[in-house]
Amino acid sequence: MCRLVIAGIAPEVRIVDLVHGIRGVRAGATLLRQSLPFAPTTAVHLAVVDPGVGTQRRAVVIQTNAGALLVGPDNGLLPPAADALGGAVAAHELTEERYQLAPLSSTFHGRDVFAPAAAHLALGVTPEAFGPAVDIGDLVRLRPAHVDVSTGKLTADVLRVDWYGNLQLAATDVDLATADFGDELSVSNGAESFDARLGRTFADGEPGALVVYIDSGGHVAVACNGSSARELLGDPAAVTITS
Amino acid sequence: MCRLVIAGIAPEVRIVDLVHGIRGVRAGATLLRQSLPFAPTTAVHLAVVDPGVGTQRRAVVIQTNAGALLVGPDNGLLPPAADALGGAVAAHELTEERYQLAPLSSTFHGRDVFAPAAAHLALGVTPEAFGPAVDIGDLVRLRPAHVDVSTGKLTADVLRVDWYGNLQLAATDVDLATADFGDELSVSNGAESFDARLGRTFADGEPGALVVYIDSGGHVAVACNGSSARELLGDPAAVTITS
Amino acid sequence: MCRLVIAGIAPEVRIVDLVHGIRGVRAGATLLRQSLPFAPTTAVHLAVVDPGVGTQRRAVVIQTNAGALLVGPDNGLLPPAADALGGAVAAHELTEERYQLAPLSSTFHGRDVFAPAAAHLALGVTPEAFGPAVDIGDLVRLRPAHVDVSTGKLTADVLRVDWYGNLQLAATDVDLATADFGDELSVSNGAESFDARLGRTFADGEPGALVVYIDSGGHVAVACNGSSARELLGDPAAVTITS
Repeated sequence: MCRLVIAGIAPEVRIVDLVHGIRGVRAGATLLRQSLPFAPTTAVHLAVVDPGVGTQRRAVVIQTNAGALLVGPDNGLLPPAADALGGAVAAHELTEERYQLAPLSSTFHGRDVFAPAAAHLALGVTPEAFGPAVDIGDLVRLRPAHVDVSTGKLTADVLRVDWYGNLQLAATDVDLATADFGDELSVSNGAESFDARLGRTFADGEPGALVVYIDSGGHVAVACNGSSARELLGDPAAVTITS
Repeated sequence: MCRLVIAGIAPEVRIVDLVHGIRGVRAGATLLRQSLPFAPTTAVHLAVVDPGVGTQRRAVVIQTNAGALLVGPDNGLLPPAADALGGAVAAHELTEERYQLAPLSSTFHGRDVFAPAAAHLALGVTPEAFGPAVDIGDLVRLRPAHVDVSTGKLTADVLRVDWYGNLQLAATDVDLATADFGDELSVSNGAESFDARLGRTFADGEPGALVVYIDSGGHVAVACNGSSARELLGDPAAVTITS
Repeated sequence: MCRLVIAGIAPEVRIVDLVHGIRGVRAGATLLRQSLPFAPTTAVHLAVVDPGVGTQRRAVVIQTNAGALLVGPDNGLLPPAADALGGAVAAHELTEERYQLAPLSSTFHGRDVFAPAAAHLALGVTPEAFGPAVDIGDLVRLRPAHVDVSTGKLTADVLRVDWYGNLQLAATDVDLATADFGDELSVSNGAESFDARLGRTFADGEPGALVVYIDSGGHVAVACNGSSARELLGDPAAVTITS
């Protein structure tokens, strides 16, 4: 419905979908941070993972150093992407009713607030026109994901699970180097441990076997070759890898 | 595949997706009715929820008072959206073979009939060119959804379940006012009752608790904060809310 | 993310999605073969079903006799579509780093190799510019799917399962004519048999009953009217139909 609203306001503007069905603000923030640097630098990015819609959370537009604009809820979703686009240089609240649909619903600001804002921004309306400035230091940020690493042991939060059931961890290639693992590993969900091996890609494991590798976002990831690591590990919030 | 066919016939025409994976004609009709008023007024809307494909059901294009054209099966899917776009002013059957793919399949009229028709309509072919006029009073309409409301009690069919598992009921904000509920409610699936509360948005409930609210389509809805009301209630066809 | 990369390199190029969530190279190859003939003849088709990403499998662009270009992994995914587009006339490996993203990941060549190649091809870069020629006889092809037919009995691999759970078999309308079935059939998954009937469309069966019909791709298919044949039959790799 956001696409219809944008097409209605800005018929000539191209709409490119990134993804749907993201579960949780952290997963959305992670995906945006890893994806938006690949997009055109002057794009307007509309992102809605908004469990607090209708509460006091603010709606914002963030201007980035790279030129892209980020539109969405002020719930932690956008700042990591702004960091990846050279940092936030300004932010404004989206309060101007002229750029909202009426009546304003309590539950679908994607349609009523964010999509109209993105469309008007794409048409050239300046961010200041949407509402009062927000101190970029006041933008809501998620608590940092947990990573704990030492030689032979790495514990990290799961940032995101992709369509295949691969787990992307908060740990990076640097953490993996610190752990200095051999080829044979053990991956624990906190309750049970599974054999795994260190690989370059998920196809390096036997069918059904767990593989630990550096994924395309530069993060440590856990996959199950030809199957779902999420299912095997029971959708854990964090995992521990030991050698 | 509909998108490829449209792009093949009308390469310059923009295609905007609304939604995929709708289950059932009533859910599709509901979503179209609630969504299409947000789209550009002169759009051609192609909708396919077509369990009767290959049977005697007709294929039609409906002209609306607002200017938009609706293309799809004559199975009840389109008339509510036509109503929301100012009403149907004319309809034509899609029988002209010149605007169909050949050979015509028995099971995929989205590809072979509806997508080519939408593409040719977007290029400016007039609805009359596609086949004989259909009396707009003869268009198939779904039986009205059931709503029964009195002070303290509201029973209503489920119109649609969204991606989050929120149930949209046939009852509206007017019905909710008639029921005159307090804050504490009970929601029954016919077999079992669950505590719920009246809220402005699904975030008004405790995590895991049921919330009854007016959704972005103006309908009474039941959500489970952070979880799925559909799963909790067992995908009911109707629910009863009592105070 | 492929869409973002294409939009970043070729902002004016239209992107039309075919499908997401395909499970397996054979299912992808089948869908491409059946779909791409409906697309504009000069399109660049980007296809990624790539379980061997990061291994020695090649990345290729195939030129077809019809004019379309196919970009993807050399794992059997593309040749059936090339056949359906008049045959492959040339192929080149995608090795030129100038047309890849850097650093090149081991697990996401859709983003780093295929999407940039498709974007540059759409902008007019010639296939030869991407790397050395590949003999079209050397392109990887899947082993042919299994079909065994005689009067009254037809055994065939499942090529693809669609969103509704309908099974598309490797057998075609010619095979069905050879089997010369009556209206009443039996469909076996190898372990258990189910009553079915021969129909023109999935709506020809009673609700919940199996129907065997020729689908929109010209293949024998098995559907369960209003339900999922995949679930009923337990997601079989092949089925046997007898009269």
